[in-house]
Amino acid sequence: MSSSPALDALIEALKCLPGVGQKSAQRMALHLIERDQAGARRLADATSNALDKVSHCQRCRNFADSEMCEICANDQRDNKLLCVVESPADVLAIETSGAYQGLYFVLLGRLSPLDGFGPEQLGLEVLETLLDEGHVKEVILATSATIEGDITAQFIADIAHKYDAQTTRLARGIPLGGELEYVDSGTLSRALSGRQQYQT
Amino acid sequence: MSSSPALDALIEALKCLPGVGQKSAQRMALHLIERDQAGARRLADATSNALDKVSHCQRCRNFADSEMCEICANDQRDNKLLCVVESPADVLAIETSGAYQGLYFVLLGRLSPLDGFGPEQLGLEVLETLLDEGHVKEVILATSATIEGDITAQFIADIAHKYDAQTTRLARGIPLGGELEYVDSGTLSRALSGRQQYQT
Repeated sequence: MSSSPALDALIEALKCLPGVGQKSAQRMALHLIERDQAGARRLADATSNALDKVSHCQRCRNFADSEMCEICANDQRDNKLLCVVESPADVLAIETSGAYQGLYFVLLGRLSPLDGFGPEQLGLEVLETLLDEGHVKEVILATSATIEGDITAQFIADIAHKYDAQTTRLARGIPLGGELEYVDSGTLSRALSGRQQYQT
Repeated sequence: MSSSPALDALIEALKCLPGVGQKSAQRMALHLIERDQAGARRLADATSNALDKVSHCQRCRNFADSEMCEICANDQRDNKLLCVVESPADVLAIETSGAYQGLYFVLLGRLSPLDGFGPEQLGLEVLETLLDEGHVKEVILATSATIEGDITAQFIADIAHKYDAQTTRLARGIPLGGELEYVDSGTLSRALSGRQQYQT
């Protein structure tokens, strides 16, 4: 118990953040109140605003402030490319790389019958509506490199073929900066079988 | 840039928390929006409420929701003991230990002329008013075990003596669970010179 119930409530509330326990929450709360009240105000407003505004894009199921997200609404982006990912975090990761200018479709999960995730949960009818428009020429299967991710990719590929879209899968291999010595054998085997002509 | 400006704003706002960079902020924002909207609402309300309510106790300078903090206002606490600490975080730490039932005085800093912290910044006139009431019989000097902390303790002790209060300093020694092998030599020397009669 601290000297201020409002401060206690703030510490308690901060503990809902992932990776934040009692000690970190105390440190964060004291920082906000002692040293960064403007930041605290911004945090309160941004959280409340995000809760009110953020919903899912009706086209790609990513987070959006209105019916259509900023990426789908941007006509500078290449609507012939569709990258299918598992979660909004994956979209953020790809956007940060700056290497992709097409559109996305977010499954919000992956096929995993044990966790109750079947085809119905992945919004595949929304995906089919999108493919049915006929713009998409290539579907990039960017689900994760796990068994469930591979099965999901296979499932999406079957749908894409119905709409005559080409399908590609993200390259597997050694990550940038990876030292051969520490790369696991599965990755190494994929990197060998997927070796490419050396460009001189 | 994500697909939702409101989500971007939330990520940006979370970065004001200590120890939170871009990646952690993304993870926290997505967690709040995807998985814990109730927690996010609590966080927004608690932050905004704390900003509106939390100020400093006029008696002990700790955080408080009204003119006097919960600790000063609690008449179950022993007003003959006054523990002088540097920051509200120190009060939280001592309260968590459960070993102290007296009152506190928070300096909100320590004497450190290089950082612009002289006696005026430590609210010593508030401390003198408190001591002048005549309840306090013992002042526990719980400033940190650093050079600045020691000098601050000396300064407070001089004031306390003017009001005929006894002064004590937190014991120095080996921390609980500390292995002798890894304890630094300064601590070890203090632990030796401050050795106590073994209770059988």
